[in-house]
Amino acid sequence: MRVRAVVAYDGTDYQGFQRQASAPTVQGTLEAALAQVTGETIGLLPAGRTDTGVHAEGQVIAFDTEWRHPLATLQRALNAVLPPDVAVRDVAAADARFHPRYDARSRRYRYTIYRHPTRSPLVRRTSLHVAAALDLAAMEAAARMLVGWHDFAAFGTPPKGDNTVREVMQATWHSDPPWLFFNIEANAFLYRMVRRIVGTLLQVGLGRMTVAEFQDVLAARGRLQSGPAAPPHGLCLVEVKY
Amino acid sequence: MRVRAVVAYDGTDYQGFQRQASAPTVQGTLEAALAQVTGETIGLLPAGRTDTGVHAEGQVIAFDTEWRHPLATLQRALNAVLPPDVAVRDVAAADARFHPRYDARSRRYRYTIYRHPTRSPLVRRTSLHVAAALDLAAMEAAARMLVGWHDFAAFGTPPKGDNTVREVMQATWHSDPPWLFFNIEANAFLYRMVRRIVGTLLQVGLGRMTVAEFQDVLAARGRLQSGPAAPPHGLCLVEVKY
Repeated sequence: MRVRAVVAYDGTDYQGFQRQASAPTVQGTLEAALAQVTGETIGLLPAGRTDTGVHAEGQVIAFDTEWRHPLATLQRALNAVLPPDVAVRDVAAADARFHPRYDARSRRYRYTIYRHPTRSPLVRRTSLHVAAALDLAAMEAAARMLVGWHDFAAFGTPPKGDNTVREVMQATWHSDPPWLFFNIEANAFLYRMVRRIVGTLLQVGLGRMTVAEFQDVLAARGRLQSGPAAPPHGLCLVEVKY
Repeated sequence: MRVRAVVAYDGTDYQGFQRQASAPTVQGTLEAALAQVTGETIGLLPAGRTDTGVHAEGQVIAFDTEWRHPLATLQRALNAVLPPDVAVRDVAAADARFHPRYDARSRRYRYTIYRHPTRSPLVRRTSLHVAAALDLAAMEAAARMLVGWHDFAAFGTPPKGDNTVREVMQATWHSDPPWLFFNIEANAFLYRMVRRIVGTLLQVGLGRMTVAEFQDVLAARGRLQSGPAAPPHGLCLVEVKY
């Protein structure tokens, strides 16, 4: 039986999602829990590979298992053996051909900024602290330019053999002081694309780049450099849609 | 010069506030930062001592220093050398006789509960996960009984030589799904009082204790036992008023 599961994790203490031989990863942790609970050796398929330090509320995985009890029991058993920073939020039976990456219609990410003169210890793991003034109107104007089909070569590298054209369905800032959220949804993302977009939009907000220059970076399709990538701890994979 | 400072911390990795010889504490961490920045040996006075694992947004401390530069510079220097899980949120000059504990009119705490069928990795350090159904109306009715002057002997022990009578100004539940917050303000609290109140109110919410039995526990002034203390990680010292 193929099972589709929604997984959440605090990425702080992991070297990203993808399994590595000698570093703690989310995939390795999930596969160890699956082995412990089912007694099977299970390799899982993810919707995407999040970077070191990036979080998820709605990562989607699929795996095949001989499990014969209710799926709710599988979920409870997995959550009982998983560490506190990884949890299975939902499980459901899936079509045998379901592939979380190739079948996904879109991914939604949220980047969280904590705007305050001083940093806050209680939110440090899941938000970027920005004390400097930000020109939110400029950041919103630049974000609007991302929507639609564009060549995002300036903002990331594709998997080998793939192109750099992606469709962004949504790219909006939402201010709820002291919080500032960037929500972005696309059919797919290039490597580091969200963090480089956020980092470049922050350059616009800080007055180090104009909206017109942001437009130029996007239009130059990789011949102009984007700004630096924003740090990973503000980023969260919120949802994968099918 | 006596300085009053507001301090925030993530209590997860500390053995409480109060300095200990051989364990990491918030007080020890703050005093080490003060020594590093000022070159002086400074002993600080806190408004109260939070337990192991308890957080603070608004702990208040006072200390004496020979610092001759602007206080904003002192704050920035402290935040530069403090670890990420402790921060100085505000500093101000205070009267030489200011004492954060004896001068406090009231303290306000918040207890955060995450109500959801499954636990969430991203909020695990600052909230208690409760999957079971809770009778919120019963918890609110019981909480209302706490308001006013009462002998809280059932809910905590006082410092040596002190009595167990305290005034609770506010004790309310606020539901904002999936969050449930308990806000309590009192002139002062006994040792573990908030956690034992929350733990007992949860017994009421879970149907293991009636509102009348809760009333009995309060009225018995220590001759009846309260419920167990709720775990520390949901608790946060929000504000100290003067």
